[in-house]
Amino acid sequence: MRRKKTSRAGSSRFTVSLPDSLMRVLDRLRTDRRYGNRSEFVRDLLRAELVKEEWADQEGETVGVLVLVYDHEIRALADKLIDIQHEYQGLITAALHVHLDAHTCLEAIPLRGPARDIQGVANRLLSIKGVRYGQLVPATAKHLT
Amino acid sequence: MRRKKTSRAGSSRFTVSLPDSLMRVLDRLRTDRRYGNRSEFVRDLLRAELVKEEWADQEGETVGVLVLVYDHEIRALADKLIDIQHEYQGLITAALHVHLDAHTCLEAIPLRGPARDIQGVANRLLSIKGVRYGQLVPATAKHLT
Amino acid sequence: MRRKKTSRAGSSRFTVSLPDSLMRVLDRLRTDRRYGNRSEFVRDLLRAELVKEEWADQEGETVGVLVLVYDHEIRALADKLIDIQHEYQGLITAALHVHLDAHTCLEAIPLRGPARDIQGVANRLLSIKGVRYGQLVPATAKHLT
Amino acid sequence: MRRKKTSRAGSSRFTVSLPDSLMRVLDRLRTDRRYGNRSEFVRDLLRAELVKEEWADQEGETVGVLVLVYDHEIRALADKLIDIQHEYQGLITAALHVHLDAHTCLEAIPLRGPARDIQGVANRLLSIKGVRYGQLVPATAKHLT
Repeated sequence: MRRKKTSRAGSSRFTVSLPDSLMRVLDRLRTDRRYGNRSEFVRDLLRAELVKEEWADQEGETVGVLVLVYDHEIRALADKLIDIQHEYQGLITAALHVHLDAHTCLEAIPLRGPARDIQGVANRLLSIKGVRYGQLVPATAKHLT
Repeated sequence: MRRKKTSRAGSSRFTVSLPDSLMRVLDRLRTDRRYGNRSEFVRDLLRAELVKEEWADQEGETVGVLVLVYDHEIRALADKLIDIQHEYQGLITAALHVHLDAHTCLEAIPLRGPARDIQGVANRLLSIKGVRYGQLVPATAKHLT
Repeated sequence: MRRKKTSRAGSSRFTVSLPDSLMRVLDRLRTDRRYGNRSEFVRDLLRAELVKEEWADQEGETVGVLVLVYDHEIRALADKLIDIQHEYQGLITAALHVHLDAHTCLEAIPLRGPARDIQGVANRLLSIKGVRYGQLVPATAKHLT
Repeated sequence: MRRKKTSRAGSSRFTVSLPDSLMRVLDRLRTDRRYGNRSEFVRDLLRAELVKEEWADQEGETVGVLVLVYDHEIRALADKLIDIQHEYQGLITAALHVHLDAHTCLEAIPLRGPARDIQGVANRLLSIKGVRYGQLVPATAKHLT
């Protein structure tokens, strides 16, 4: 992820203020990942955000994988999650369910369709009470140059 | 699946009585599968049963796949199926859930452990009200000579 | 699976000859499963075959799950299996792959389409050298009365 | 993701320099996500990085899902990916394989074990020639306050 210094022509600046604890984190991550300076590190974080944004904005059919972690002992939660998945049958055909421990389930749900629709179902599933963690992984290979 | 005629030494006979409709089925299947006579066909059905039986009787760890079809709109059914799967966490780590249509779910559940335990969980899952169909597939390669 | 004795009107008979070892198996299974006599047991085996046959003959879209066990160390075998699955993309969208041990893989592959096509892909996958075991499970709930 | 302004006591500053194009992206994302200023936005990006870092540093067993997209027509690629997964059988028991189109495969691979080991296998799988895209999703619910 190392990139050459971009020329200063056509660039601008702004100031970031961080709590000291977070500044220490920044400096540690920056060193670990071998970034020359903080500015470079922040640029790469922004580029990664842009990749996600572009994925969400693209036209046509795309693919994502939603990873959900939830507590199956919450009454009717599994029922609710399956109901919603069935509602969006055009986008979801299958899911991998992993039994993590006596209480915790993980689901990896491939979704296929317009990015906006995928994001919509993902948000709906993530917002359900009892879902402890979730992340939508764009599964296409668009890369920012 | 063709087999040589076994010698009549050490063999015995019994008579099967079938409704005419089933006899016609038998004759059609026997012809389609190129069995020389009805007796041969029945022998192969019995051998297949024996393979399943041997699977269930074997010592040590084995593997099976349980295929379930159920109606997810039956209240709390998905919850119940997941609860039971979590109870047997030693045997089940993951399951593939397929959304067949707005109402119907298919689950393919790999199970690993002593055959008797696998059979036990399978029976428990299959007996739940709302499970419309199910079959346990022994997934080992024991073959009867 | 117990069924009432059918009336002898409209029924016919044939004789089955079995090696003594297989006759002992038959008698053990028959007792374990509480069939009144051998004839009844054979009738139920035939009915089960008929269910499978009807599944294969049905018109319209249906669903099956193919369970495969294979040795992934056989050169290019995994490649071949995935190639064929991609060829039949209309029928197969996903598969659950389980790593059984250092050498052995299990795959549970849901198939959806005309029964004849499902049977066709299944046969093609099963016939590949290196596939040690496989079974196609009809995943619909047609039952013979 | 809105957070209260942290007190300036115990905080420090640095300057970020961005190409104008990226600055426009930053301002658009910041507005869309309703951040009060750029500094706040960067703070949240850093916090998200810290969550990932903490996941990778944690002791004991954890869980992640690796999402891979690859071209199965590259010779021996599927074989190689399966070989490596079998090598790490302690971490990987199953994977969901999705046939995206005639050429493209997606795999969602749950991993369980020490974070460092999970990261190690993920990196090894991601580095294989022919893997077009991949992302490791930490599937635990650690949240940074």
